[in-house]
Amino acid sequence: MAESARESAQKARSASRKLQALATEERVAMLNRIADALLANETEILAENAKDVQEAGDKISQALLQRLVLKPQKIQQLAEGIRAIAAEEEPIRRVISRMEGQRQQQQQQQRLQRLVLKPQKVQQLAEGIRAIAAKKEPIRRVISRMEVAEGLTLEKQTAPIGVLLIIFEARPDALPQIAALALRSGNGLLLKGGKEAAHSNAVLHKIIVEAIGPMGADLIHLITSRDEIADLLKLDDVIDLVIPRGGNALVSHIQANTKIPVLGHADGICHVYVDAAADLDKAIKIVVDAKVDYAAACNAVEKVLVHESLVANGGLGKIQSALQDAGVTVHAGERLQQLQPDSKLPAAPSARHEYSSLDVTLEVAADMAAAIDHIHANGSGHTECIVTEDAEAAEAFLRGVDSACVFHNASTRFADGFRFGLGAEVGISTSRIHARGPVGVEGLLTSKWVMRGSGQVVAKDSGVTYTHKKQRIA
Amino acid sequence: MAESARESAQKARSASRKLQALATEERVAMLNRIADALLANETEILAENAKDVQEAGDKISQALLQRLVLKPQKIQQLAEGIRAIAAEEEPIRRVISRMEGQRQQQQQQQRLQRLVLKPQKVQQLAEGIRAIAAKKEPIRRVISRMEVAEGLTLEKQTAPIGVLLIIFEARPDALPQIAALALRSGNGLLLKGGKEAAHSNAVLHKIIVEAIGPMGADLIHLITSRDEIADLLKLDDVIDLVIPRGGNALVSHIQANTKIPVLGHADGICHVYVDAAADLDKAIKIVVDAKVDYAAACNAVEKVLVHESLVANGGLGKIQSALQDAGVTVHAGERLQQLQPDSKLPAAPSARHEYSSLDVTLEVAADMAAAIDHIHANGSGHTECIVTEDAEAAEAFLRGVDSACVFHNASTRFADGFRFGLGAEVGISTSRIHARGPVGVEGLLTSKWVMRGSGQVVAKDSGVTYTHKKQRIA
Repeated sequence: MAESARESAQKARSASRKLQALATEERVAMLNRIADALLANETEILAENAKDVQEAGDKISQALLQRLVLKPQKIQQLAEGIRAIAAEEEPIRRVISRMEGQRQQQQQQQRLQRLVLKPQKVQQLAEGIRAIAAKKEPIRRVISRMEVAEGLTLEKQTAPIGVLLIIFEARPDALPQIAALALRSGNGLLLKGGKEAAHSNAVLHKIIVEAIGPMGADLIHLITSRDEIADLLKLDDVIDLVIPRGGNALVSHIQANTKIPVLGHADGICHVYVDAAADLDKAIKIVVDAKVDYAAACNAVEKVLVHESLVANGGLGKIQSALQDAGVTVHAGERLQQLQPDSKLPAAPSARHEYSSLDVTLEVAADMAAAIDHIHANGSGHTECIVTEDAEAAEAFLRGVDSACVFHNASTRFADGFRFGLGAEVGISTSRIHARGPVGVEGLLTSKWVMRGSGQVVAKDSGVTYTHKKQRIA
Repeated sequence: MAESARESAQKARSASRKLQALATEERVAMLNRIADALLANETEILAENAKDVQEAGDKISQALLQRLVLKPQKIQQLAEGIRAIAAEEEPIRRVISRMEGQRQQQQQQQRLQRLVLKPQKVQQLAEGIRAIAAKKEPIRRVISRMEVAEGLTLEKQTAPIGVLLIIFEARPDALPQIAALALRSGNGLLLKGGKEAAHSNAVLHKIIVEAIGPMGADLIHLITSRDEIADLLKLDDVIDLVIPRGGNALVSHIQANTKIPVLGHADGICHVYVDAAADLDKAIKIVVDAKVDYAAACNAVEKVLVHESLVANGGLGKIQSALQDAGVTVHAGERLQQLQPDSKLPAAPSARHEYSSLDVTLEVAADMAAAIDHIHANGSGHTECIVTEDAEAAEAFLRGVDSACVFHNASTRFADGFRFGLGAEVGISTSRIHARGPVGVEGLLTSKWVMRGSGQVVAKDSGVTYTHKKQRIA
């Protein structure tokens, strides 16, 4: 491919404009063809995916191997390290570094798991794409209509954003989902996948482009390794939005290195606040689910804030035990440490910490106002939940907490595009501009003003008599 | 003021959160108090404004004076310049530089005009604020509602963005308008006004803050000269959106120098396409209004594209004469120069040029498709218009042109928040993310997901049976 990423972006824009002009049925047919093609090519997809998994597995084993092999240089480093430890007495560092090693291993295994495509997953993908195809036409939907003056009407319509750059790590199932969402919303697409999934991405891209038809190759570009992420992030004049799908490090790096608007979240530091009026059984069920269902997810709880009255009445102790019984390491927040100095809980690393593992901070809040202040000071604006039977307190929390998602008596794990009924999601945004929370087709749209007249002019605002009558939308 | 801009932004966020929690009536009352206060303090406002006008007028005269005074250094520069010109034969440069001088003078006069507040304007401002107060509650409006599972409901609600930074040049009337829009939409505000309007801005800010009451000083901050724009643009962790209100140079500078999302437009290169099936009288009326009504506006036409058939039938000639009769200098585009090599029209500086003056480019398009391609290649995505009696052609243009505003048979000058019925505008956005086109209260809102349950958990998606039923909004 001699084509530069800039050229790809320009082709994607012009193809996106052609796509918008097509009738709904044609665009829906494209999506259904993609779903068909995924199913028809399942064997090829799984074969290519197996290559990726094989290669990634090899690399990870080598990494593990390398850690086991002691080379002369390493022994020297170790010796120096031991001398330093002896001199400075820093046992905590050592523990952390050992934990880091374990965590890295866990993370690599998680990455490997995410990489694997199974027949069931291909079928789910095809179903998801049919669901996106079946959704109401998202483009040129009339948002509002007004009579500006006699014979002069104004409509606000939905319109595609234009050209999207999606940067995603391992997960190859993200590719067809994102392609379907972009197609349904009329956008052109630049895809930059992780090297680990190169075979899977290539075959998925090929199948999708062929299923779309003549327009496919211009509309959806798989950027190969020749163009590095740094170069792509400079193309702010031809790319309208970048959506990173991956870990904290990837998202933070992208946010720090581009002028293209970024839709996503770096941190997912979610809170559950257990109110004085909470039903303790519900609280335990929610808190455990919010952590254990998928500990590394961005919508997993990282801190459980408990109303002070639950310290004395034993509620806090029961929540702590339930979490521990579920295999969670409970860390004590600053206030809890002061209240229970003799507890054997390890201290939380800081007031603002994302574990992404089977760890959670337990902390005490004097009242709901203090809990809300604590969330605003230490949260990441992703998802927060109140557990209470007091309807008034619940509404005050939902109104007062300034996060993308605020829940009453429901697990934070519900903060997800599929569970929210969006069909699929391109990601979850904690940005306050454009889309917020789980982002589906709607988040890939902008608006456009369409005015229809019969020769009206402004003439210093004496050309027409403004009526500004809002009209009903059919 | 010992307070830093960062501290101001943090106070603004926390005040914005308190503001959101207030009842609608309280926020509406604040706005009406501001309107009252503006009228009650008209004399003081005009007196402070007169100081600004006086000082700015002095400066402009001095600038003119300086240009007349020849100092030894300048004479040397001039001599060198003349030698260079003699050597390189660059007469065009000289003409451009003379034109630049005239344009600078014109621009300075325009700036002075924009600076002046008259009693009528103060009354208009007060009326505008009452209109914003009278609008339907914009915060916590339910955008969509869904039953996710039995007893588990999800709402998407409107929410304030948070903290806005508005950077505006001369026009002091922008301050109360923006303050009113921010207040209605529940946002905190950092205002950075031009030095020229320092007295006017200070008195307007004081009146508004007092009218709001105890929360006022935390909510709306007038940033004084101590914090320069460059420092403000670095505060991307505490400011959510920057809205520049000013010329091309200001907007471009801000866009290039911040990671905070920018809402606005650098260029306003608007097109009118006169179709083969146009009513020529309508076309002339629209084209002349689109340029002459306010030549320096961002929604003024910069290029008139005429269907080729109008060259032979004299339509193009009539449009040209009408523009010239209205005092407009008509420049020939590339294609028109080729078709009419003997015309005495000056050549357009380039295919993409914003005159912001009584100048316009006249150009020929082979057909509508060519006109649309030309617009996409050379426009700025602001506002484009088709003049035609062919309804099908009109709809194809409205659908095919990818701009914030697309009009049929109406002057481009209608692209404006007031004329669009938004009450007031914070600006016009050509960005494709968040708000697009004229931006009123709605553009200062984001959304928030609110979920209400009774203890539901995800439990690997077996915790509930998803129903995903869309519910009607009352």
